[in-house]
Amino acid sequence: MNECAIGIDLGGTKIKVALVDRSGQIYYNQKIPTRAELGSQSVIQAIVQEVAKLQSSKEYQIKALGIGVAGQIEADSGIVKFAPNLKWHNVALKSGLYHQIHLPVAVVDDVKAAAYGEWKYGAGKGCSDLVCMFIGTGIGGGIIANGKLFGGGSNTAGEIGHMIVEQNGPECTCGNWGCVEAIGGGWAIAKHAKEMVKNDRQAGQYLLDCCQSIDEITAAHVALGAQKGDPLCQKVIGNAVNAIVACSVNIVNVLNPIKLIVGGGVVKGIPHLLDEIRKGIKARALAAACGNLEVVDAALGDNAGVVGAATYALDQV
Amino acid sequence: MNECAIGIDLGGTKIKVALVDRSGQIYYNQKIPTRAELGSQSVIQAIVQEVAKLQSSKEYQIKALGIGVAGQIEADSGIVKFAPNLKWHNVALKSGLYHQIHLPVAVVDDVKAAAYGEWKYGAGKGCSDLVCMFIGTGIGGGIIANGKLFGGGSNTAGEIGHMIVEQNGPECTCGNWGCVEAIGGGWAIAKHAKEMVKNDRQAGQYLLDCCQSIDEITAAHVALGAQKGDPLCQKVIGNAVNAIVACSVNIVNVLNPIKLIVGGGVVKGIPHLLDEIRKGIKARALAAACGNLEVVDAALGDNAGVVGAATYALDQV
Repeated sequence: MNECAIGIDLGGTKIKVALVDRSGQIYYNQKIPTRAELGSQSVIQAIVQEVAKLQSSKEYQIKALGIGVAGQIEADSGIVKFAPNLKWHNVALKSGLYHQIHLPVAVVDDVKAAAYGEWKYGAGKGCSDLVCMFIGTGIGGGIIANGKLFGGGSNTAGEIGHMIVEQNGPECTCGNWGCVEAIGGGWAIAKHAKEMVKNDRQAGQYLLDCCQSIDEITAAHVALGAQKGDPLCQKVIGNAVNAIVACSVNIVNVLNPIKLIVGGGVVKGIPHLLDEIRKGIKARALAAACGNLEVVDAALGDNAGVVGAATYALDQV
Repeated sequence: MNECAIGIDLGGTKIKVALVDRSGQIYYNQKIPTRAELGSQSVIQAIVQEVAKLQSSKEYQIKALGIGVAGQIEADSGIVKFAPNLKWHNVALKSGLYHQIHLPVAVVDDVKAAAYGEWKYGAGKGCSDLVCMFIGTGIGGGIIANGKLFGGGSNTAGEIGHMIVEQNGPECTCGNWGCVEAIGGGWAIAKHAKEMVKNDRQAGQYLLDCCQSIDEITAAHVALGAQKGDPLCQKVIGNAVNAIVACSVNIVNVLNPIKLIVGGGVVKGIPHLLDEIRKGIKARALAAACGNLEVVDAALGDNAGVVGAATYALDQV
């Protein structure tokens, strides 16, 4: 009977629950709705019920539970200081779970959990210095430095999506402007395409033909349009790629990773993105900082979060 | 008799040699010319002679030697892969010194040495997560993370001067463009002022009155002009400040330090710089990342490099 941990990815709409052993193997993988509108205690109860099912099966030797949350986590207490998707403020997630499930609980930022998973069992296996960049609706990151998850002074390090690459650039959802996410994130790609279509419906004909209305334009539509050669879509995706390249150069110059692992939904829609990142780093980063660098695709896909959360929890036991 | 180490700051024009004890106290502080044009072996011999003087005095218990060099250092071997100021390529500095002085030798990037000094005995004393930003002719940085000097995968981490803050910005000496150094570094301040004076001699009258010719304009002239209210100088310094603020925001969001220590010659010429950095971080960085942050002046001045190199070497013994 393998030692396992429960890995949970607590999202705004769904909760992913998996059972992961010490080799990164997944034995169970389930999704339940979050129903965040019912409040934090209700969400915690839903998790406790899922855990109870796994604990009752006696098939697994469950040693710990790791849970990734999109938000600001206080490292030791496991308090979720703020999680915008869940509308949580100061929720004692770690102690709330621990008192009911009697397992060691580790609460970690969801993107850091995914980076941890990629490091331990994905594209970063065996590499002690790496950065994961996940490009989806937003852009998030996780840093492994000298064989450890890099938290910074108050456990918020790795917010690479909010790196300014264009100091007078477009507004970001974080209140800043010119962040790479505000140009290269999925929401920004959709937003800028919508604005351009509104300003010039003729230039936006391809997107208007795809979508019922301007409001329905998504980053996926824009990425596909760019692949098909539509000039407006190519312009928006080109801007996104440039910003992501600049962010990658900054990561290399400042953090000097051996691997830059790139994942997330937007990557799939831009097949040449990794090559553009590689070319951009070669052209713009310090030669000394990128001599040994590899830029690679993330390997675990949607499972990175649960695998990473479970493994992180096991590694704390 | 206190345990000491010799700390050396090997610059392109001068070599600073100091004797530093385990409390950061300096007992001896000397400068000799580098004479890099005579070649690396000659520079090493000059250092060996200085060390021999200190070793012969018997007054101090010298345990190690630390040497900071502006260049790319291979961490374990202490080989200087490339040092542009010295025109060195692959110089075996550590072994070259060790075989003659018979002391443990640590070779470290000069800016990292200065950051180490500020951490151990300067503005960062007792803080386990900090970033030092030194703004002089160039902009350099050193990162202390989780109570250790952060080297990255190949010992080049912390090159914050080459962080892109304006992706289509001006050319940098590193081959990149839009780096913070290319807008906010001393050389860039002088360069942009010169260009503006050339384009509009009337607007440049203040600087032309200060200097014999356009070529003699320095960052110090521009900074003083800005303090005196000259509009052209204020424009150039304003751009420099904005770029430095953007870089500071990126440092906070990505690295989440508890202290951001700001030093270097340009800082003295811009008295409001630290306040601008503080205001900019408050306006633009993620709230969670800067709750505990302090932005402070460097404390060791020109001695940071020798104190840091010596202390780093002592800490390795």
